[in-house]
Amino acid sequence: MSLIESQEFELHPGLGADTLPVVSLCLSDVLLMNDSRYLWCILVPRVAGLRDFHDLPADCKLPMLEEIDRVSAVIEELSNAYKINVAALGNMVEQLHIHVIARHRNDTAWPGPVWGVGDAEPYPDDSANGLIEQISKHLAHQAPDKTRQRPAT
Amino acid sequence: MSLIESQEFELHPGLGADTLPVVSLCLSDVLLMNDSRYLWCILVPRVAGLRDFHDLPADCKLPMLEEIDRVSAVIEELSNAYKINVAALGNMVEQLHIHVIARHRNDTAWPGPVWGVGDAEPYPDDSANGLIEQISKHLAHQAPDKTRQRPAT
Repeated sequence: MSLIESQEFELHPGLGADTLPVVSLCLSDVLLMNDSRYLWCILVPRVAGLRDFHDLPADCKLPMLEEIDRVSAVIEELSNAYKINVAALGNMVEQLHIHVIARHRNDTAWPGPVWGVGDAEPYPDDSANGLIEQISKHLAHQAPDKTRQRPAT
Repeated sequence: MSLIESQEFELHPGLGADTLPVVSLCLSDVLLMNDSRYLWCILVPRVAGLRDFHDLPADCKLPMLEEIDRVSAVIEELSNAYKINVAALGNMVEQLHIHVIARHRNDTAWPGPVWGVGDAEPYPDDSANGLIEQISKHLAHQAPDKTRQRPAT
């Protein structure tokens, strides 16, 4: 079993509850935060037992950065973002996850961080599907050999 | 001129005003946030013109991660932190800087993020000097060949 594809990994239910699945990259699952106020992705490296950013095994560090970069570039392009915020906090849900958030100077929380500002506004019904498809397609277009689609469920 | 030691780099005055200098690592300057409520460092890669995390040139990505890891490990050890928060936000000061913050379950902002919670409590007089020396020594002890002290001014 490689370090990168740990079979013991399970997504923390707290992350699953707040997000919609987008795509699985080589190292991490890309999730869309179910909050239509921001274009906000979360990357969860599929390695069991990680808590802090510096817990990442050595062979995962560069892949992790590459995937953060790829998701950043896609959501920046899709939303014409003014800034991209990247953060590994994990005070509420301890499983290592990295927020990648497109920010605009007129968004609800600007210029503060997004956490704890008002209530999430979930995407109504299936309205996130088109966005998820766009993110997924853009990621695939960047580097088709590095992206594999999450199997249909 | 190498990409890593850009001569055009100048620390944004907004970052200088809120922090105390600790040490210069290969890629980034390590600063101590002048807020005694948290052990909170800021890393600023000395490359001119960077804004977002994914703007880092390819040859700086791994060194940046290594320096984040080193500072994380040191402040975790020095403060016996429960979690380390890592974030590149930059909505207020756009120059790329990475927050590395030791968090405790009884700190002022827990479990929320630290930004925008109450007012900073600056270290009185020279009381941060001992802490700065400790951080600096621990970083040097980790990898003496990678750490060079900021020249005395």
